[in-house]
Amino acid sequence: MSPDDHLDRAQSVVALGGGHGLAASLQALRLLVDDLVVDELTAVVTVADNGGSSGRLRGEFGVLPPGDLRMALAALCGDDQWGDTWARVLQHRFAGHGEMNGHVIGNLLIVGLWEQLGDPVAALDWVGRLLGTKGRVLPMALVPLDITARVRGLDADDPAATVTVRGQVEVATTGGDIVSIALDPPDPKPCPEAIDAVHAADWVVLGPGSWYSSVIPHLEVPALRSALAATDARIVVVLNLAGEAGETSGYDAIDHLAVLVQHAPDVTIHTVIADRTSVGEDAAELEQAVASYGARLVLADVACDDGQPRHDAERLAGTYAGILSGS
Amino acid sequence: MSPDDHLDRAQSVVALGGGHGLAASLQALRLLVDDLVVDELTAVVTVADNGGSSGRLRGEFGVLPPGDLRMALAALCGDDQWGDTWARVLQHRFAGHGEMNGHVIGNLLIVGLWEQLGDPVAALDWVGRLLGTKGRVLPMALVPLDITARVRGLDADDPAATVTVRGQVEVATTGGDIVSIALDPPDPKPCPEAIDAVHAADWVVLGPGSWYSSVIPHLEVPALRSALAATDARIVVVLNLAGEAGETSGYDAIDHLAVLVQHAPDVTIHTVIADRTSVGEDAAELEQAVASYGARLVLADVACDDGQPRHDAERLAGTYAGILSGS
Repeated sequence: MSPDDHLDRAQSVVALGGGHGLAASLQALRLLVDDLVVDELTAVVTVADNGGSSGRLRGEFGVLPPGDLRMALAALCGDDQWGDTWARVLQHRFAGHGEMNGHVIGNLLIVGLWEQLGDPVAALDWVGRLLGTKGRVLPMALVPLDITARVRGLDADDPAATVTVRGQVEVATTGGDIVSIALDPPDPKPCPEAIDAVHAADWVVLGPGSWYSSVIPHLEVPALRSALAATDARIVVVLNLAGEAGETSGYDAIDHLAVLVQHAPDVTIHTVIADRTSVGEDAAELEQAVASYGARLVLADVACDDGQPRHDAERLAGTYAGILSGS
Repeated sequence: MSPDDHLDRAQSVVALGGGHGLAASLQALRLLVDDLVVDELTAVVTVADNGGSSGRLRGEFGVLPPGDLRMALAALCGDDQWGDTWARVLQHRFAGHGEMNGHVIGNLLIVGLWEQLGDPVAALDWVGRLLGTKGRVLPMALVPLDITARVRGLDADDPAATVTVRGQVEVATTGGDIVSIALDPPDPKPCPEAIDAVHAADWVVLGPGSWYSSVIPHLEVPALRSALAATDARIVVVLNLAGEAGETSGYDAIDHLAVLVQHAPDVTIHTVIADRTSVGEDAAELEQAVASYGARLVLADVACDDGQPRHDAERLAGTYAGILSGS
């Protein structure tokens, strides 16, 4: 890619994240695939979940937690009856009070494919073909990971002391203040296709999503972080609309950005997207912070109307389109 | 269908049964679809299983036991890489020592589709589309069934007394002599598409398979038996190669035929297929028995070479082809 020609053609985009935040970003980006603004879309997904159906399957079979991968695949499904039906089926969660309660069909299917094919990436590609996805979904590492966090404020006798909290669920719901996170193992086997995609991309999108448990973990995979530091791709950070109870309770936009940069000072951010209403009166201060990191701020109305702190796919797509077309 | 013209065109076939026996028959019949001898193929499958993965799912969700339906779908899968891969994945059984042990991916997928779509037949059609099946798979009833058997020889004090054994697994493995079987409920809601298929068929194939627990149950669904008695389709019975430990221990070909007729004297059998080697010196006696039911006997080499009492798909296909072409 030459920096000069990349706006004259359809763009390749890599989206990093996990959970509902990544799914929202992918739902936006697939609209740009439909509009021919994006011609190559790759999701690189956190594989550190230790809760729910994913945690049970990971514990039982020693596999990557499939849930966030399945959610990303479903978010990219074809928009015909075929893609829609299979996405709904793969997202189906068993109820009841038996042994299947809480398990999700797509998680079981992915684990079965992994066992049958023995190749995690090939298996995800098969699910992609089933769903007619408008992009590829890859794991951020080829081994299941645990997130650990240094957390302050959990020791009543010594509020300044930090303790280590282990596990995505435990980190996401901590009652203390997270100082930093790390991964175990600290240098996991990366997914080569994900590294290649970052190097080849025109744009990399980081966030939105659970900040410490779904977004920042990518920066803690050494090979992925090196690729992010080295790539010519322009890196876009999509800030969350609000802090989340637990891991980012009380965080504003500036706090989100600060802890992200703290975890990867060598990664150059090109653009920061923040929701205009959520930022409110802090816009000038945020603009200053963004500029201090060498990036530019795009304030836009990207929140849903329902009052929930969720991104609206169409609005986010419009914002992405503006950025990708250089406007 | 007029009886005179039906040999001049491709034939429609309905295969009744369950388990591995039905799968073998379907693997044979799909070869005739490839050869354009058969243009419409429908499997009507027992839904009385109460063991294994199917039994657990039936117990947990009150659904039809999916296992025999899944096995029939896999047997009909498209013969390209797509059909083959998805069939293998749907047949994949989880190992290990956890809660998923013994569950089969396809069973879970079918139950998920049932819950999502709320229509058992539409859901099976979706799995058929996924696999690119060369035929349709239908349940023999729309409610889960229990097989009950009157069994003699289980009471040590009174060897002539009959007791009732309940459940497909229990019937299949009984140590006594089965006198007759019945279904609970005795008049289950039939599958209209299955009834229609029997009426419209040129040929109906019954067996091979576990005789009391997979083949004869079809004759105990009143609506299905009425259709079998009324249809112009020619009914072909494929006899098992040997008796099975438990339900048909010690049965020869004549015994198999006799108990089938006993359960449905109003159903007219057109042709009986038996394996030449398995029948051996009893051929003349079997021919006489078959003739006494108004049917004709086709003796053919249809067994596998490995010494297991299994039908070889290609050999069975050749025998079916001869019968369907009127030779």
